[in-house]
Amino acid sequence: MLTPMQWNSEGTLDLIDQRILPWEEKWIRCRSAGEAARAISDMVVRGAPAIGITAGYGMALAAQDLIRVELNEGAEESVRGGVSARAQGYMEHMFSAYEELVESRPTAVNLEWAAKIQLETASEIASREGSAAAIFEALLQNAEKMHEKDIQSNREIGRHGAGLLREGDRVLTHCNAGALATGGYGTALGVIRFAHDAQMNVQALATETRPFLQGARLTSWELARDGIPVRLIVDSAAAYMMSRGEIDAVVVGADRVAANGDVANKIGTYAIALAAQDNSIPFYVAIPTSTLDRESPSAEGIQIERRPGTEVTHFGSTRVVPDMVEAENYAFDITPARLVTAIITEHGVVEPPFEDNFDRITGQRDAEG
Amino acid sequence: MLTPMQWNSEGTLDLIDQRILPWEEKWIRCRSAGEAARAISDMVVRGAPAIGITAGYGMALAAQDLIRVELNEGAEESVRGGVSARAQGYMEHMFSAYEELVESRPTAVNLEWAAKIQLETASEIASREGSAAAIFEALLQNAEKMHEKDIQSNREIGRHGAGLLREGDRVLTHCNAGALATGGYGTALGVIRFAHDAQMNVQALATETRPFLQGARLTSWELARDGIPVRLIVDSAAAYMMSRGEIDAVVVGADRVAANGDVANKIGTYAIALAAQDNSIPFYVAIPTSTLDRESPSAEGIQIERRPGTEVTHFGSTRVVPDMVEAENYAFDITPARLVTAIITEHGVVEPPFEDNFDRITGQRDAEG
Repeated sequence: MLTPMQWNSEGTLDLIDQRILPWEEKWIRCRSAGEAARAISDMVVRGAPAIGITAGYGMALAAQDLIRVELNEGAEESVRGGVSARAQGYMEHMFSAYEELVESRPTAVNLEWAAKIQLETASEIASREGSAAAIFEALLQNAEKMHEKDIQSNREIGRHGAGLLREGDRVLTHCNAGALATGGYGTALGVIRFAHDAQMNVQALATETRPFLQGARLTSWELARDGIPVRLIVDSAAAYMMSRGEIDAVVVGADRVAANGDVANKIGTYAIALAAQDNSIPFYVAIPTSTLDRESPSAEGIQIERRPGTEVTHFGSTRVVPDMVEAENYAFDITPARLVTAIITEHGVVEPPFEDNFDRITGQRDAEG
Repeated sequence: MLTPMQWNSEGTLDLIDQRILPWEEKWIRCRSAGEAARAISDMVVRGAPAIGITAGYGMALAAQDLIRVELNEGAEESVRGGVSARAQGYMEHMFSAYEELVESRPTAVNLEWAAKIQLETASEIASREGSAAAIFEALLQNAEKMHEKDIQSNREIGRHGAGLLREGDRVLTHCNAGALATGGYGTALGVIRFAHDAQMNVQALATETRPFLQGARLTSWELARDGIPVRLIVDSAAAYMMSRGEIDAVVVGADRVAANGDVANKIGTYAIALAAQDNSIPFYVAIPTSTLDRESPSAEGIQIERRPGTEVTHFGSTRVVPDMVEAENYAFDITPARLVTAIITEHGVVEPPFEDNFDRITGQRDAEG
């Protein structure tokens, strides 16, 4: 099973370098939360669930530092405000790792979600004077559980989503919401993968996804690798392909979904949703519930990352654009909930009105523990 | 004044190589209609009006061949069916040049329009036993007139279009409908240029326009060259930029406009028009009336060119996509008339219902001769 991140028994987090796929399969080794944060901001690893899991492991790397510090300095037992200075020192270190990870990319909610779970676990153990080793073990276990659970969720998303497709459907997807964007298997590509494995004879159409070319480089690579038929188009061709009757459904992932169903996802998603509406084609968003941000009532408050213009003006090291011209490079956009046919989660398919129907799903999630 | 084609007094047509701009300014010399047709299909020159004018000059190159043939073979005066064999020979040669040029790219109507005018002129002169030199001179004069008239038209388009803009407008354009796509000055960029020259303080936003990067390479180059503020975005960001309130109007060119106002233009235009509608932003199409195809009632019958997938899968000589994956590459799309706010022509601004209002414009054109 293709997974973009692996915990190494020597105590490092290894990430496949998604900037140079499909030309090269090279793994990058992270030894600290800072290195993991840099790998996220540099897009060695990308995709909301994948960077969430990476942040989970990143916090485990930070906890691992505590053991080293403990070994070096010995256990200090002076008590400040009911908690030992050692425990306070742990938490300061963990909080600074948390901040570094959360700030590495602003739009995906999974990053904050995973890092927060880890911070809370660390805090809980530290506050009852648990050892650095205990914190590390708990955080590594959490991260591994997040990783496994994400893959399981994706299979469930795939199963629910495949139920929305018909035999022979030609499914458009944007960016890469595949194994590489998650713990494995994928969200949007999980739907296509599940349908393919169920012999539904589906075909994928991938947008190349400028400027980072996630569709051209990553989606097409991982689908072709699994023998799933895939063809590529430029991003701007999606609408025309729909009007020609060459697309039956759209499935994309998301970086954050607001409580009302507004979707923050890769730049270009909104345009595809408009085209789907104009051509009466269903537009589905496939996400684990960890991508739901119920604290944002709508997309209005979601921060949209602006990345360097050089990602647009350059191809590799070649400048494509005249020297005096600069580019604007928003990495994500907002697709209003009104354009979304349904949101596919591991707990089932959610239809509008999303706010009410998320309540049902969340209840279900809480009940399942 | 920047013009992409120049008739050389030595009897060649010189074209600026738009495949390698802005890195290199290199002119390509065409000695025959076949070479001109190849320059069109290879996209040395592109843009509906520009390839129309190139076809006009291409027919003059074909007529120039007749003089050489005449010098070599002498004048044959045998008569077949009321017309001399010489005249028939001329017309066969001219017709084959016509076919070669018209087939070089299928979507732009200007190509056929210009080549047909030339074929008719040649036929008219040949049928009254005019000399090869007379045919050549008439065709060269026609081509030069088309070229000049196109530039004049573009200034008129610019003037009418600028009347639709407001002080300080940020205007989105797609592909390159500029000096390089026409005889000079440009259609959509003519509007922006005119507004800029009129001190309206407009700013251009150019889509990069995958896969050929006409926006990144050509539009940004020619606007920056003229000191017109321009920023670049990826094609799929247009919708989001509109929803952020960062775009006030859209102006694009067209390769063919049907009688009902349906617009065939660069792939991606349809998606931009949908986004403009969703954000209540005016969507204008700027064309010379030579781009009107009143014989096509709607876009249904318009042939949309499919270009090699390698334009998408490769960047220069670098393959971006895994080997086993192929790309679909429609070069144009259809924007339904219902999404078009107005069509800007050299005779004025045409609003819906387009069919009736084109009648008015056509009448005006006929009256003006």
